Amino acid sequence: MSLPQNHRKLRHDELLQQRRSLEGIHAETRHPVSLLLYNIRSLYNVGSLFRTGDAGFITKLYLCGYTPYPPRKEIEKTALGAVDTVPWEYSPDAKLLIPRLRAEGLNVMALEMTTESRSVYSLKRKDYPLCLVLGNEITGVDDDVLELCSGAVDIPMYGVKHSLNVGVAGGIALFEAVRAWKMLES
Amino acid sequence: MSLPQNHRKLRHDELLQQRRSLEGIHAETRHPVSLLLYNIRSLYNVGSLFRTGDAGFITKLYLCGYTPYPPRKEIEKTALGAVDTVPWEYSPDAKLLIPRLRAEGLNVMALEMTTESRSVYSLKRKDYPLCLVLGNEITGVDDDVLELCSGAVDIPMYGVKHSLNVGVAGGIALFEAVRAWKMLES
Repeated sequence: MSLPQNHRKLRHDELLQQRRSLEGIHAETRHPVSLLLYNIRSLYNVGSLFRTGDAGFITKLYLCGYTPYPPRKEIEKTALGAVDTVPWEYSPDAKLLIPRLRAEGLNVMALEMTTESRSVYSLKRKDYPLCLVLGNEITGVDDDVLELCSGAVDIPMYGVKHSLNVGVAGGIALFEAVRAWKMLES
Repeated sequence: MSLPQNHRKLRHDELLQQRRSLEGIHAETRHPVSLLLYNIRSLYNVGSLFRTGDAGFITKLYLCGYTPYPPRKEIEKTALGAVDTVPWEYSPDAKLLIPRLRAEGLNVMALEMTTESRSVYSLKRKDYPLCLVLGNEITGVDDDVLELCSGAVDIPMYGVKHSLNVGVAGGIALFEAVRAWKMLES
């Protein structure tokens, strides 16, 4: 392998040229992937998921149950401005919201290891528009919420432990859903 | 879509059946992907990357520069036991370590948006065994370390902001490297 000459990070002005403008984004077609945060406890996980949702250009972020929602300074600190760039809605009762989203045509799937789950790496065109439900940091997605979903996807766990931080798991699943969508579209 | 009957989370004993045993892991062939953490500031990001490294069954985690390393109770709290399941090494000087790893045959690539970077979704067989370098939370991978790498990969950023939390970015890139490796192998 040859070492690139003058290999350097992109400067801030070069990054700015590549990115979408705040003014333009609300008119653009977003990826057909949404996230539903159900009883997430940590303000930092919520902020991180806003930031990841912006990077993935998702359709919407739903905040449910006792999941904290903006304005909260700890969320904004971690979201680094993404609370203004990701469409979001607070909806206290996931048991009302999920049937509503499914009636609107969304495929609502839990990100959870369940008796029915399949790999997140198996997404097909019919799985979109997709809404992934992320559950509480310790207890995951409750079974009574799981029953309202159309199914579940999981991230293959290859190690000794069997979990990921919810912000990391959300990022892996979201970017895989976007990758698969773009591949199916091309 | 039909609602699965009796859809429920896997119980702890069911998860245990699926996972590798602590006794057996050191004899098994790990994925040919390693992580090098260069001047990561946050104990929680380090702990989270241990946890992600366990889940991805990576070969090794290298901790460099002022990146904190075990034993530190904040790392262990976030790693949830993964400091015992992921092989790791503290090596203070990345500028000595990276040439050593490359001499040993590793393809050391920065996870960074650079003048030379290509998408992490373009990994080919010749890119393995791969070691991904993750840089500081604010400043990323310094240019003088970048020059020692064989190149750089980036995660496509689709939004208005242009960054991810380093633990999230590491998780996305690591799981993509594992996914691509398994697809190339199959």
